[in-house]
Amino acid sequence: MQVKIFITLKNGVVDPQGITIKGALESLGYQGIANIRLGKYIQMELNSKSREEAGKDIEEMCDKLLANPVIENYRYEIEKDSG
Amino acid sequence: MQVKIFITLKNGVVDPQGITIKGALESLGYQGIANIRLGKYIQMELNSKSREEAGKDIEEMCDKLLANPVIENYRYEIEKDSG
Repeated sequence: MQVKIFITLKNGVVDPQGITIKGALESLGYQGIANIRLGKYIQMELNSKSREEAGKDIEEMCDKLLANPVIENYRYEIEKDSG
Repeated sequence: MQVKIFITLKNGVVDPQGITIKGALESLGYQGIANIRLGKYIQMELNSKSREEAGKDIEEMCDKLLANPVIENYRYEIEKDSG
């Protein structure tokens, strides 16, 4: 099962990387950029038997290891294997 | 215009962070994980007039600054503002 996990900083948490990217883009001449936030994007394959089992595992993985629940939110998408 | 950019390592490029995450998850007891890859997820708002203009700007931004075209691929989604 192909899984995509998106980890983002919660609203209100300062994102220094986002601020740096915004500054760099503005210095390249791009104006009108707002609310730029950098997050993580994790792809993996799981050999779970069902979507429910995969979803449960992913939530546990995110809470325990992948995301910091104090400052980060996550969401995920589960796709059937292409193969 | 709300934009989401996904930057991933190209196939064949070694992903040390992904390997580390896989090892950590396995040590927590999760088996059957394969092809884990860590990428970047960037959200931003652009005040472009059209989707075409926004797409052109995003491709330029990725090529110049956000992604390393030698080892990374990117894709993006453009959404209308919710507000």
